Amino acid sequence: MNILIKNIQALMNDEKETFVIKNVSLVIKGDTISKIIYDEVKDPSVLGTTFDKIIDGTNKLVIPGLINCHTHSYMAFMRNIMDDVPFMDWLFKGVMPIEDNIMTEEDTYYGALLGMAEMIHSGTTCFNDMNVQINTAPKAAIAAGMRGFVSRGLVGEGDNQAGSDRLKWAFEEMDNFPNEELVGFMLAPHAPYTCDLEYMKIVSAKAKERGVGIHTHLSESLSEIEQIKEKYNMTPIEMAEAGGLFDGLCVAAHCVQVTDSDIDIFAKHGVSVATNPVSNMKLGNGFAPVEKMLEKGVNVCLGTDGAASNNSLNFFHEMNILSLIHKGVEKKADAMSAKTVLKIATINGAKALGIADKVGSISEGKKADLAILDSTALSLTPHNNLIGSLVYSANGTEVETVLINGQIVMENKQILTFNEDEVKAKCEEISKRVLKELGR
Amino acid sequence: MNILIKNIQALMNDEKETFVIKNVSLVIKGDTISKIIYDEVKDPSVLGTTFDKIIDGTNKLVIPGLINCHTHSYMAFMRNIMDDVPFMDWLFKGVMPIEDNIMTEEDTYYGALLGMAEMIHSGTTCFNDMNVQINTAPKAAIAAGMRGFVSRGLVGEGDNQAGSDRLKWAFEEMDNFPNEELVGFMLAPHAPYTCDLEYMKIVSAKAKERGVGIHTHLSESLSEIEQIKEKYNMTPIEMAEAGGLFDGLCVAAHCVQVTDSDIDIFAKHGVSVATNPVSNMKLGNGFAPVEKMLEKGVNVCLGTDGAASNNSLNFFHEMNILSLIHKGVEKKADAMSAKTVLKIATINGAKALGIADKVGSISEGKKADLAILDSTALSLTPHNNLIGSLVYSANGTEVETVLINGQIVMENKQILTFNEDEVKAKCEEISKRVLKELGR
Repeated sequence: MNILIKNIQALMNDEKETFVIKNVSLVIKGDTISKIIYDEVKDPSVLGTTFDKIIDGTNKLVIPGLINCHTHSYMAFMRNIMDDVPFMDWLFKGVMPIEDNIMTEEDTYYGALLGMAEMIHSGTTCFNDMNVQINTAPKAAIAAGMRGFVSRGLVGEGDNQAGSDRLKWAFEEMDNFPNEELVGFMLAPHAPYTCDLEYMKIVSAKAKERGVGIHTHLSESLSEIEQIKEKYNMTPIEMAEAGGLFDGLCVAAHCVQVTDSDIDIFAKHGVSVATNPVSNMKLGNGFAPVEKMLEKGVNVCLGTDGAASNNSLNFFHEMNILSLIHKGVEKKADAMSAKTVLKIATINGAKALGIADKVGSISEGKKADLAILDSTALSLTPHNNLIGSLVYSANGTEVETVLINGQIVMENKQILTFNEDEVKAKCEEISKRVLKELGR
Repeated sequence: MNILIKNIQALMNDEKETFVIKNVSLVIKGDTISKIIYDEVKDPSVLGTTFDKIIDGTNKLVIPGLINCHTHSYMAFMRNIMDDVPFMDWLFKGVMPIEDNIMTEEDTYYGALLGMAEMIHSGTTCFNDMNVQINTAPKAAIAAGMRGFVSRGLVGEGDNQAGSDRLKWAFEEMDNFPNEELVGFMLAPHAPYTCDLEYMKIVSAKAKERGVGIHTHLSESLSEIEQIKEKYNMTPIEMAEAGGLFDGLCVAAHCVQVTDSDIDIFAKHGVSVATNPVSNMKLGNGFAPVEKMLEKGVNVCLGTDGAASNNSLNFFHEMNILSLIHKGVEKKADAMSAKTVLKIATINGAKALGIADKVGSISEGKKADLAILDSTALSLTPHNNLIGSLVYSANGTEVETVLINGQIVMENKQILTFNEDEVKAKCEEISKRVLKELGR
């Protein structure tokens, strides 16, 4: 399908700059942005392409699709299930009983689709997902037409059965979806407190062998730091380094409680840190030293975490809070600028996932992963500074139309790839059953 | 006009509890909630009232109108005008040149209406406003049908001309709107660094004489603390106490940098603190010790501040961030619960403004200030816990219909009291002119 997005304002960005340019047109051939035209297009027929669809850009703003680098999409059905309780109650009385004994494969499929509906509605086109039940996240991503990486969470000690089983399942999932253009895989050693050093080494070797990246949780809570210190006399980041997790592409989520030397380790190995500002506050873990990481050259990207600890997958919400809290923590109004946040949410995310050649910016030759916003929305009025408004004023519902890999997956706020109402109804049913089984 | 809101879910709250109740009906006679019916209403005709309008509550949730206790509504036209710059540049290169030399009476009128559009759209029915040009905020509130308190910012030293002029203007504004049911007034000594002790005493005496409350900024930035320490060897809060500001009803905005003994002063005098979490971060001032204030019995309420330092007047955004940052700062997932936040945003706001007998909860005999939300919105799906979703998942655009004092001011997201599109277009014009005059 060939699409022309005609005479629109566009958020352009690369490694160095982020700016809004007026009156550009994007020629999309198949899955690719084949040409960017910087003059007004009056007559599309002179462009030498037959377009199946022309999107009029009047009063619209197109931005690169946002990249959510750490989430658990299936958790969307658990949204608000354990709010305002201590972390251990959240984990042991809410999330774990549901994951271990209650949720079914169908639950996680519809949960993932609900999460994807939220992501698409707020302009996210690509995500990095960690799951506990194989196959359902890739199936949901394929149904939604989303780009993403999926990994089965791995927990193990040395070469024990639990760890080996999980690795086997992870490979089974990869083998079940061998030729998907949009869905890739990683290996996901869950965290230093659930994987011992020996198991990390096994997983790292397997990742290298298979040629896939690593997706992990690191240094999320203070109790994790204490536990790993006692067991190994190391920080969780030193342990992950010793376990080989940083030898290839690695996306480390959270990284809240980190030392200066931990940050040097990230920089040395080119580890990408997926910061999760909302989840880190919601679960009482605090604020990650993101400004310092950026200063030291670490590739910082952004993630929402799952809906059980956020409780929203709206990336505009996450971008807003990323900027605000770091201005607050640093006590500097010019810390963590809107431009920096937009770069983190796009280009840096693409780099983290190893696909910066394909997505992360509106550039000729890159895939057409785009979100089109209504620039006349109340939240963006008046137009004093659109870059500032995207981060400080937008609420995410300005997004009207979303393209992924050249396919229109949402048009005028209607998702085209799956039946959103059916997914919502299904998740209401799931929620009722799960709450009942949880004894609530 | 008599209105029946039929068979709806309702967020009920009082001093002690906040809960959602299913299938209630609200009988609204004129401006008042005259009866709450806790059984399903099948046939409205048996209720003995002729209704001009019946609102079907299927798949809706009604909440008390939210109360924004500190804002500068006129600033909405300045949204995003000075983002990501140091505080002093924000003030001296942005806000002050515009306020002193550029903005006209018309600008502030349309700015205020734009701000009110945003407030209404996100369920705010009552606000506490500080302005610099008299008459335009009350005019806008009357046009919008909003409830509010307005105060002309006062700056002065002793009985100097500047201070006397401003007081004269403040009273002129009050006298221009003597019989408004929805619009009240306060006196607004701007801040300890712009009003000296003598002037504070004059203003306090005038407020007592006139029988109006005080609205002020206190202890916002560290430089304010240093300045007042040097000049008076007091904290700004001690100075305000000495200046008599706490002798009657007082709403103190910000209060970020406060000592334990400052908090005791608030508690002793019954001062209400309007916390502004977003603005305090955006301008690099940090985090207010709100949990401690609540523990010590201070009436904490919530405000967005103006759109130049937020940059949104969406109260759902503010509620969300209030909870999250205090969980983050206290490192406790159970700090600042959703229930506490909802109480702060409703009941506590009404108490702060001295109108808790009229608004702040859905109660028989109180005024019908209500927001009706689409409870099937994606952000609120599934319904595991509606109270949690209001604070952690909602983005504000779930609000469909808003009543203030029994009048429907917005229905199905269309503002009925003024022409929102005209206001937006006007603010775009104003923005272009202002940016040009600012040399941008």
